[in-house]
Amino acid sequence: MNNILIIGAGRSSIALINYVLKKAQEFQWFVTVADADPQLAESKVNGHPNGRSTWLDVMKVNDRKELIERADVVVSLLPAHLHLEVAKDCIRLKKHLITASYVSKEMYQLGNQARENNLIFMGEMGLDPGIDHMSAMQKIEEIKENGGKLTAFRSYTGGLIAPESDDNPWHYKFTWNPRNVVTAGRGTAQYLEGGKYKYIPYRRLFTKYRPVDIQGMGEYEVYANRDSLLYREVYGLKDIPNILRGTIRAKGFCDAWAALVKIGLTNGTYPILDSEKLTYHALMEAFTSDEPGNSVKEKIAHLIREEPNSEVMQKLEWLGLFRKKKINLPNATPALILEELLLDKWKLKKTDKDMIIMQHEFEYKLKGKKKCLISTLVLKGVDATDTAMARLVGLPMGIFVRLVMQGQIKTTGVNIPVMKQVYEPVLEELKEYGVEFIEKEIDL
Amino acid sequence: MNNILIIGAGRSSIALINYVLKKAQEFQWFVTVADADPQLAESKVNGHPNGRSTWLDVMKVNDRKELIERADVVVSLLPAHLHLEVAKDCIRLKKHLITASYVSKEMYQLGNQARENNLIFMGEMGLDPGIDHMSAMQKIEEIKENGGKLTAFRSYTGGLIAPESDDNPWHYKFTWNPRNVVTAGRGTAQYLEGGKYKYIPYRRLFTKYRPVDIQGMGEYEVYANRDSLLYREVYGLKDIPNILRGTIRAKGFCDAWAALVKIGLTNGTYPILDSEKLTYHALMEAFTSDEPGNSVKEKIAHLIREEPNSEVMQKLEWLGLFRKKKINLPNATPALILEELLLDKWKLKKTDKDMIIMQHEFEYKLKGKKKCLISTLVLKGVDATDTAMARLVGLPMGIFVRLVMQGQIKTTGVNIPVMKQVYEPVLEELKEYGVEFIEKEIDL
Repeated sequence: MNNILIIGAGRSSIALINYVLKKAQEFQWFVTVADADPQLAESKVNGHPNGRSTWLDVMKVNDRKELIERADVVVSLLPAHLHLEVAKDCIRLKKHLITASYVSKEMYQLGNQARENNLIFMGEMGLDPGIDHMSAMQKIEEIKENGGKLTAFRSYTGGLIAPESDDNPWHYKFTWNPRNVVTAGRGTAQYLEGGKYKYIPYRRLFTKYRPVDIQGMGEYEVYANRDSLLYREVYGLKDIPNILRGTIRAKGFCDAWAALVKIGLTNGTYPILDSEKLTYHALMEAFTSDEPGNSVKEKIAHLIREEPNSEVMQKLEWLGLFRKKKINLPNATPALILEELLLDKWKLKKTDKDMIIMQHEFEYKLKGKKKCLISTLVLKGVDATDTAMARLVGLPMGIFVRLVMQGQIKTTGVNIPVMKQVYEPVLEELKEYGVEFIEKEIDL
Repeated sequence: MNNILIIGAGRSSIALINYVLKKAQEFQWFVTVADADPQLAESKVNGHPNGRSTWLDVMKVNDRKELIERADVVVSLLPAHLHLEVAKDCIRLKKHLITASYVSKEMYQLGNQARENNLIFMGEMGLDPGIDHMSAMQKIEEIKENGGKLTAFRSYTGGLIAPESDDNPWHYKFTWNPRNVVTAGRGTAQYLEGGKYKYIPYRRLFTKYRPVDIQGMGEYEVYANRDSLLYREVYGLKDIPNILRGTIRAKGFCDAWAALVKIGLTNGTYPILDSEKLTYHALMEAFTSDEPGNSVKEKIAHLIREEPNSEVMQKLEWLGLFRKKKINLPNATPALILEELLLDKWKLKKTDKDMIIMQHEFEYKLKGKKKCLISTLVLKGVDATDTAMARLVGLPMGIFVRLVMQGQIKTTGVNIPVMKQVYEPVLEELKEYGVEFIEKEIDL
């Protein structure tokens, strides 16, 4: 095995490509980076002797197959819905496949075929999902091996802006897919508390955040994810009475985002009529009806039960929602209008550093004592290009590529990284790149 | 022409079938009533010399075509999604078609074919939609003919319980499709006010009701419908600056329904896990999280910002939402659990009278003066079988059947009843059945 194909050279690919090229030089591998934008691929390979860039329209079946045919291991950084076709090619052409995306039901259905062909299909091999699985599983298995019985598992992750680059009242900038931020939480969050299922509808999700103390960083807010119950079985926590997964935001964020939800600005189901002719001010007015007040701002403050000069209202005002500036998007949904506005206001500056926080809390009983282990990762980026996000998504995939290339992975079929043979070497090597969890154990 | 086919003999069919059978005797027509339940059809025809009942599974194409072939006019009381196949048969077999359902886009696309074959396809020929179109159009055209210029049109309808049969704190019982009541308002209500589009998201729809004085009945509440903007063009009100359609409820209903929405009980998008093992009390608990309070009731009161003994809380309590009684529905959505509960609590007793209220408000300028015409219909049913709802849905269709049979309708193609040749004779004859609008004109 000496050929690696990486499909996709977008902004999450840098750390992965750099890692793989470095290892390629050491182990005499050859790396092909394919993208629909050949210049983008070229800029990432950047003349490296062990790499080449190529143009690929992933919808062109023959081109795609030809590239995959020449590889031993394929890494797909494509949007999630495009993985499946690549996966089917990998089955036919007998190639290993690695992605950072959630494993779909359709992908899991390829499990038997992958196993029969001795193929490794590893999904959820990035940050979240990815490092969250690996770091949680390591601790869960340690606690169990020591004879502990887990009673609660809570796991929080946030893609944030580092304090030194934080210069807006929301204490937030886009470090990842803006659309996912605008649509976050739609549906109903489900989790387990005291052995009982709990439900938080979207309409009050951002009002039901909990304060969380992040080791070394101070207080943040966490709102519940939709998928808290999803990994109980794979984590070996089938009967745990308390389980919660959540998203970390800076203090004050959730109340202000709850206001956007309440006004109706995160709704993506219908178009605002003549939106291209409206101002943001007129859009806000369109959401008011019988609220008391002399201005749209006062009416909106009343609608969201805030004082006109509250911190939440200041955040809305900072976004420009009360400005008489044209929206200029034809027939756009409220969510799209909001996304466009935030893209501008929450843009990373070139020198801005992003920051990833992940914190797990494991409550368990050991020899009659109740304990809590808190395990925390904080990593900051270097600038707006070399982000902590790109590193934490790319490095686990890169390290896993190395493990596969060197024949160190024995498990075949469709998997996520919850097995020791995967998480142990990956987490160990991640430390070399400054990716290290700090731990604290407290008696409850 | 002397054969009429009525497909569907459910509870909305009584007034229609009785009317058509009576006229059949007078004019020597023959009426076939077809239903998947032949006994139901038989009970409606009830041995009438001009009628017969027959069994029909509407999905059996040949049976359906055979029946339609023998008719001159077809009335479909089927669920809305089944009309289209009947309509296509009617095109092929050259038969007129009448329904009380909203005309779908697909149905409108049959317009040319219907016209080419000289066929009358009339939809929205019931109460709402139906009588609302006809009664509004009559007044709109009257005002225009007198030289008035309309500045506002508001139209409200409610299927309610008559005061003498009102014996529960919600002042509401099911007189129509329960599912439609539980899902009412999902989406975003749009309307026009002062020339500006206004939007009310579902999350606050039931908090943004307006008090409306109904002539002769006192004060009710109205919440906005989704479709206020829909009929501007067909009503000839393209440039009107104020338009609102709404649903009428008794005082106090909307605040209490808003509480159900807020808690999350009207959500139909996900199943409550193990719902068959839960009590209503446990379900309510599952929607609470960090609210203060010593009991689930207190926590819910806090969640909906009510005092534990407020009128809203009393309504929830009356529904049995805090009782430790098993739900007994497996994997049901909150909306389905609520629907099942309400089916029991809001059931019409045999002797209960329902009541339909419809009120239009037309604001207009005439010779420099601002006026408002208020036109109101109130009709009560006789008992739980002979309901005002069934009369007001069935009689317009019956009268229209007569008009078609007697060759008095000249317009062909797919239509809704907004033309004078339809609304004038229908509204006139409805008066014989006690269906009459009272009017009041006030200077503004």
